[in-house]
Amino acid sequence: MRLDELARRLDATLVGDPEAVVDGVRSLSDAGPTHLSFLHNPKYVEQARTSRAAAILVRDAEALPERNLLVCDEPYLALARALELIHPAEDVVRGVHPSAIVDDGARLGEDVAVGPCAVIGRGSRVGDGSIIGAGAVIGRDVEIGAKCHLHPRVVIEDRCRVGDRCILHAGAVVGSDGFGFASVGGVHHKVPQVGIVDIEDDVEIGANVCIDRAALGVTRVGRGTKVDNLVQIAHNVEIGEGCLLVAQVGISGSTTIGSHAVFAGQSGCSGHLTIGDRVVLGAKSALYRDMPDGAVWTGIPARPHREWLKSTVNLQRLDSLRESVKDLEGRVAELTEAVEGHDT
Amino acid sequence: MRLDELARRLDATLVGDPEAVVDGVRSLSDAGPTHLSFLHNPKYVEQARTSRAAAILVRDAEALPERNLLVCDEPYLALARALELIHPAEDVVRGVHPSAIVDDGARLGEDVAVGPCAVIGRGSRVGDGSIIGAGAVIGRDVEIGAKCHLHPRVVIEDRCRVGDRCILHAGAVVGSDGFGFASVGGVHHKVPQVGIVDIEDDVEIGANVCIDRAALGVTRVGRGTKVDNLVQIAHNVEIGEGCLLVAQVGISGSTTIGSHAVFAGQSGCSGHLTIGDRVVLGAKSALYRDMPDGAVWTGIPARPHREWLKSTVNLQRLDSLRESVKDLEGRVAELTEAVEGHDT
Amino acid sequence: MRLDELARRLDATLVGDPEAVVDGVRSLSDAGPTHLSFLHNPKYVEQARTSRAAAILVRDAEALPERNLLVCDEPYLALARALELIHPAEDVVRGVHPSAIVDDGARLGEDVAVGPCAVIGRGSRVGDGSIIGAGAVIGRDVEIGAKCHLHPRVVIEDRCRVGDRCILHAGAVVGSDGFGFASVGGVHHKVPQVGIVDIEDDVEIGANVCIDRAALGVTRVGRGTKVDNLVQIAHNVEIGEGCLLVAQVGISGSTTIGSHAVFAGQSGCSGHLTIGDRVVLGAKSALYRDMPDGAVWTGIPARPHREWLKSTVNLQRLDSLRESVKDLEGRVAELTEAVEGHDT
Repeated sequence: MRLDELARRLDATLVGDPEAVVDGVRSLSDAGPTHLSFLHNPKYVEQARTSRAAAILVRDAEALPERNLLVCDEPYLALARALELIHPAEDVVRGVHPSAIVDDGARLGEDVAVGPCAVIGRGSRVGDGSIIGAGAVIGRDVEIGAKCHLHPRVVIEDRCRVGDRCILHAGAVVGSDGFGFASVGGVHHKVPQVGIVDIEDDVEIGANVCIDRAALGVTRVGRGTKVDNLVQIAHNVEIGEGCLLVAQVGISGSTTIGSHAVFAGQSGCSGHLTIGDRVVLGAKSALYRDMPDGAVWTGIPARPHREWLKSTVNLQRLDSLRESVKDLEGRVAELTEAVEGHDT
Repeated sequence: MRLDELARRLDATLVGDPEAVVDGVRSLSDAGPTHLSFLHNPKYVEQARTSRAAAILVRDAEALPERNLLVCDEPYLALARALELIHPAEDVVRGVHPSAIVDDGARLGEDVAVGPCAVIGRGSRVGDGSIIGAGAVIGRDVEIGAKCHLHPRVVIEDRCRVGDRCILHAGAVVGSDGFGFASVGGVHHKVPQVGIVDIEDDVEIGANVCIDRAALGVTRVGRGTKVDNLVQIAHNVEIGEGCLLVAQVGISGSTTIGSHAVFAGQSGCSGHLTIGDRVVLGAKSALYRDMPDGAVWTGIPARPHREWLKSTVNLQRLDSLRESVKDLEGRVAELTEAVEGHDT
Repeated sequence: MRLDELARRLDATLVGDPEAVVDGVRSLSDAGPTHLSFLHNPKYVEQARTSRAAAILVRDAEALPERNLLVCDEPYLALARALELIHPAEDVVRGVHPSAIVDDGARLGEDVAVGPCAVIGRGSRVGDGSIIGAGAVIGRDVEIGAKCHLHPRVVIEDRCRVGDRCILHAGAVVGSDGFGFASVGGVHHKVPQVGIVDIEDDVEIGANVCIDRAALGVTRVGRGTKVDNLVQIAHNVEIGEGCLLVAQVGISGSTTIGSHAVFAGQSGCSGHLTIGDRVVLGAKSALYRDMPDGAVWTGIPARPHREWLKSTVNLQRLDSLRESVKDLEGRVAELTEAVEGHDT
């Protein structure tokens, strides 16, 4: 594709040769003379200068003089669109593979693809254009919307719901029982988990993620929220819209999270919390109390990020503080002696 | 079901209208006028007062005047029983699905259900009434007891054992190789892992949990222990009876845990430790040494919970401590000058 | 097998009765009079002295007088070889199980085993002698080398590569999409992940591990690296040769790790870092910056291990430091009074 054509399609401003041609997208270091690349993280500006790429998506043209550039406000978003144009997803064969087991009481929409050895139970519905990967298991009375992509070996247990345009990666489990026991005299009696999971539209769920069904009611993942691999979402959690949960995060039972929250990798929170909108919880943090709208917290226990930074620095200076105190003790002893010497 | 009948079945004391009828169980906020609800966590007492529920399971009648109540010592246990009465589990079709692959040398008990595309290997046995979910894979010479429920896509590798009445959630892996290598000159030579996993009766294992087989001997999960999602149990670990391992916990190799221990979410411990009975390890903690019976420890490294709390508070007060020291330094300097002034 | 024969095969020096016979390998505590055992961790020397084992693999003969010993420099490596001799792996039936779905356009080498309900897509190749476990799903255009063992339910997504002699445990996912979104105005637009995963020769991948495909280019796991269960490896990560990643580790996107690095359990690092050769990152640590060759770091944030130890001790002594400061304040007040008393 010629750069002028690409610029037009990406709503970008072309700087440089309109007739240059790109036939692929590569990283700055891998790109060759027919590749488009991109500069998103300023850490890589030097790499951009020396890249062999034919053209570079960039926000600020002045950073890269004498290069073919596609200048736009959101180069990363433009990259996403360029990838769709230049590396379109492979076609998936539509229809039900002969080895799949689709219950007679299940209803499939139009242009659905059901892969080999996939299983769809009684009363379940799959919307138009959705893809059910090989070996996926859909229980009974499950509802899956349109244009979803369930990768191989996803499990959706009975009665759970998945909205439109959701992507679930391999091995994700939706609707496992919540961890609920009535413990009496050292014996843990199972509390039946009779609720469901409701995954709203445009959600992406990572590989081997676990989302437990509610004890009663609903465990909810809000519209447009993206969940990375190996995340745990416990029973009765409610997550708002447009949140990002990075890999290996754990959300304990009955906690409510607002919209546009970010939980960085390996962070976690205890149960029954109320967490506001637009919060950021730092990587590896452990949150034990409610978090107000817009808070940026870090640490174990999590507290405002600036306080955590200060504590971290203070902790590393404790040696010098101990020395100061020791020093003071010596000087005070000398002074005491001197003053008492005067008195006697 | 009428409240008087329900009270009788749950061994609860009825306060209020015996003829009131409930046809479902809901949370306090979701309940309508034909629903039973429950008050377990005192945090929700206000919600209980305004709930529309027909009746509430509660320990202390005085907390909720003028309501229909089922009063009992263990309202959460009563909830478990009420759910079994009012929301009984759906029937599972018994027999072997035609798409399942059961080796001729495998033996299935009575009333066993084997789901679509499940695989059971040579020499394996499944006890009466057990359910093997769709796509589950049981290796060779595995023993599974009676009345177990293996959810879809569980894997039990060769020679491992599962007791009676165990529940294994989707994606759990039992009997993967332990992480054992003899590292010589930078090359990690695999040590064959020839032991097994033994899961005793009444154990519940969460979704996508991993339990490694022993290098030699047995990795054991004791009777009545409950393991939440995404937990890692390494080779030769021995876990006692009635323990609770919350989500994303990691237990390193050859560690022994007593009975009725609680490991909170995302905590972990190093290998070759001896951990006593009735211990509690706090969320996100990292345990590096043996833990005596009944200890309640938290932190990285884990130490008695009170010490950790004090450290946490002290850490947050370090700024003021630094200021006190600076202040002292000023005053001591002044004093020194004053005293030396006297001397000269 | 007689001890003299075993000593010869293991290149060990026999101390004791050459005619003693062993027919199995057991741990020190489980071994009976016909078993070989081993002493690797000095913690267990007392157990070795009282073990009933017929013979013990050991480095230092003097630690265990009056026993049959096989003395060698690397007893743990010798154990690995002894296990291969005495407990050889069970034979796997070669050929394609009739229930497996192998695309006509896939190519299988000689002596390949494809288990029940396994799926191999168009254009994929499996090398000689490899084992594809029951329910494993291999996408399109995947390349798997020779003598690999994919356990049940492994997923390898389209176009990814696995070298020779690799072992992938149950539930591992290779080639799920990286977590990449262009977030504009609160909406997270998916950036298509068009790269691949390349797993080099002699790699072992634990159960339920997730390795994301690169956004562009390659996510790489270097030759001889061993990855434990439930580890997360994000898109565009590059891991060198001979590394060890212990259970539940998380490596964020675009981070590069050198060779022979060790990441202990539940540790993690942020993205876009450059981590040197032969580093050790302690359990539960969180790494936020580049790590030079040979560094041994611990903590949150990770810093040199000795500093972390000192901080940990200092933190636990903060109470006594606070008391010292309080004490000093009292003495300085007294001194001030005394000095001022003089002055007036």
